[in-house]
Amino acid sequence: MLKLDHIGVAVTDLAQAIEAYQSLGLSLAHREVVERDAVEVAFLPFEGGRFELLAPHDETSPVARFLAKRGPGIHHVALAVDHLQAVLAQLKALGLTLIDQEPRPGAEGSQVAFIHPSAMGGVLVELVEHPNKEALRD
Amino acid sequence: MLKLDHIGVAVTDLAQAIEAYQSLGLSLAHREVVERDAVEVAFLPFEGGRFELLAPHDETSPVARFLAKRGPGIHHVALAVDHLQAVLAQLKALGLTLIDQEPRPGAEGSQVAFIHPSAMGGVLVELVEHPNKEALRD
Repeated sequence: MLKLDHIGVAVTDLAQAIEAYQSLGLSLAHREVVERDAVEVAFLPFEGGRFELLAPHDETSPVARFLAKRGPGIHHVALAVDHLQAVLAQLKALGLTLIDQEPRPGAEGSQVAFIHPSAMGGVLVELVEHPNKEALRD
Repeated sequence: MLKLDHIGVAVTDLAQAIEAYQSLGLSLAHREVVERDAVEVAFLPFEGGRFELLAPHDETSPVARFLAKRGPGIHHVALAVDHLQAVLAQLKALGLTLIDQEPRPGAEGSQVAFIHPSAMGGVLVELVEHPNKEALRD
């Protein structure tokens, strides 16, 4: 069965958003800058997955464009897969529109690829393959 | 730790959306009409939670208003709690803006309450208390 990895939330103020999610009883587990997408991300785990709060570093970030167009809110849903390359090949064979034809680097040394929202009822779905799944279960 | 219950996705065509999510390898587990919100819902489980696809029955549905304003996409994220009434009291004490001050009936005999998106970085968060949690683990 597919496993949820995280729910990505686009925010303007990362510190303020972390505080809001902490008020629900969640804890900050990890914070990282992903240069390629010009974002800083913060992960807050829950049972079954994690929130990934994403704040853009500058206007070139896809998250900045999302915020300008739609305002803060859920940006994407990430599902973990074991063999990303094989899953992408399968989705291509089914005719689904992909944003990334090949895996590319994500946070925490992962490989990621996005499926186009038009293929998934308006939801931007990210597929993630982690280098070492056990390390994330701590 | 808080547990993910489901990710709610607003769609216009329920059958078409079910098919799209099935192409990812997910299976349809349950389908139900929630009269109070004038929606039909379909649940597709993954490890860690479920997608809840929501299609409005008529224009009075909050989901119809969402679709008219934002188009299809993620409508809300639902987190499962054991004692909804107590959690709501705690969030009120913290000053969070709630949509539902008291629990109200949701799908599958659950009690639900929504937190206002302005309090959660633009995300509509639903809190769910299930009548019998074991029954959902099958």
